[in-house]
Amino acid sequence: MQNVETHEHALSGINIVLVEPTHPGNIGSVARAMKTMGLSSLVLVNPKKFPHYEASKLAAGAESVLETARVVTTVKEAIEDCTLVLGTSVRDREVSWPTQNPHTVAKGVFAHINSTSNSCVALLFGRESSGLTNEELDLCQMQIRIDANPQYSSLNLASAVQIMAYELRMQALVKIDCVDEGAASNTAMMTGLEQRQVLATNKQKEGYIQHLQSTLEALDFINTKPPTILMRKLTRLYNKAELTVEEIQILRGILSATEKKIHEQ
Amino acid sequence: MQNVETHEHALSGINIVLVEPTHPGNIGSVARAMKTMGLSSLVLVNPKKFPHYEASKLAAGAESVLETARVVTTVKEAIEDCTLVLGTSVRDREVSWPTQNPHTVAKGVFAHINSTSNSCVALLFGRESSGLTNEELDLCQMQIRIDANPQYSSLNLASAVQIMAYELRMQALVKIDCVDEGAASNTAMMTGLEQRQVLATNKQKEGYIQHLQSTLEALDFINTKPPTILMRKLTRLYNKAELTVEEIQILRGILSATEKKIHEQ
Repeated sequence: MQNVETHEHALSGINIVLVEPTHPGNIGSVARAMKTMGLSSLVLVNPKKFPHYEASKLAAGAESVLETARVVTTVKEAIEDCTLVLGTSVRDREVSWPTQNPHTVAKGVFAHINSTSNSCVALLFGRESSGLTNEELDLCQMQIRIDANPQYSSLNLASAVQIMAYELRMQALVKIDCVDEGAASNTAMMTGLEQRQVLATNKQKEGYIQHLQSTLEALDFINTKPPTILMRKLTRLYNKAELTVEEIQILRGILSATEKKIHEQ
Repeated sequence: MQNVETHEHALSGINIVLVEPTHPGNIGSVARAMKTMGLSSLVLVNPKKFPHYEASKLAAGAESVLETARVVTTVKEAIEDCTLVLGTSVRDREVSWPTQNPHTVAKGVFAHINSTSNSCVALLFGRESSGLTNEELDLCQMQIRIDANPQYSSLNLASAVQIMAYELRMQALVKIDCVDEGAASNTAMMTGLEQRQVLATNKQKEGYIQHLQSTLEALDFINTKPPTILMRKLTRLYNKAELTVEEIQILRGILSATEKKIHEQ
């Protein structure tokens, strides 16, 4: 008999990050939605009320997800070990981030997990009222857009998590030994490579962006403070590249060489 | 200009049938889940409490779905005009009905709608506690199985509706003149975007890489000629980013500022 494996176990490593949820009931419903699909890692950024009896009540058997939830104070803290960060939005925005539908994102997440030795994935879900801020979206490699009814796109927080968790589970249950050509080429497309890579964590990328900013200041390339728009564009550019640890080293090496030249003057 | 059509309008004709729902709050949440995905036709078979303020409260803007809901006393009455009836279950049963996942069912629903002049589709969702009876499942052409976590398959009624409604909407939004789904998703993956951006041509990227190389030489960062391995790594890095024309301009601006600093010496 053939022993067919799936990626089901990988679901438990995917982090669902709720940014400043207001209603404790929603946290409970999210826990339930996650557990039905095999997800278990919940991170709460500044929850208004947590722990709370309403969260436990609506978890309805998924209290284990609440008990192991990590509570942090900033999004950066929530994602500092992550190699792939995705943000969710049902709204259109003026500044366009790269967006994908949940199905394509779920494929991309597993392509990332399969091709990365230190993968750590986070899916950010914004506030009930106002979603994610632009600064929070800047931290994301990609934006997930659930293509809702334009006349009524008011998806409940737990419903948005349910849809994403469902799509992740469907991808996780794809048999490893019958990966279709499309999935394989998606993997190559996401990584640009066939070997497993050591991707830079968010913290390492942040370190690079800070180094880049200070070098650009030394070069007099940036002369307004804070040079937000340009730095945001550069952050987004390098996020798209899914930098490896080695690439960060090369890029920082170039910055150091530039700084050295400037100081020789 | 090409006028690309979708089946979005067909969503409003698909009936969501809740069989003997116990909690009025669930009816409201179902209405909301339906409306976010463009569905509007709700049928209630023997609801325990309806109308009810909790249903209206949880509908949260989707009260129109409740107002037009049809209330009947038997499943047969609910589906009497229907040409395709599907039943939902998250549980395994001893007697096996033909089952399909939500994605396949959604495709089947639209195949049915497209090929039937009098199509009327009903999706049955069972009681919160016990689902559909065997007799009710006998009325269905097919059983939908949401492949939930076997350790915790307790999907909320509205969550099950949300997943099905989402899959139906995704199928409804498939362009009628776009046959090859694989090709479409690959295109989306290639661009990483739904909005059109002006991506750099290969020639523009090559120009940037040459500029980068000459700057790195001026910085004494590269001192072997030809510095093939490092430049190949940098080429690959920037190829992963799928640079836009604007991003190339920013990156070349940084290189020019660097060169200027070097020449000031």
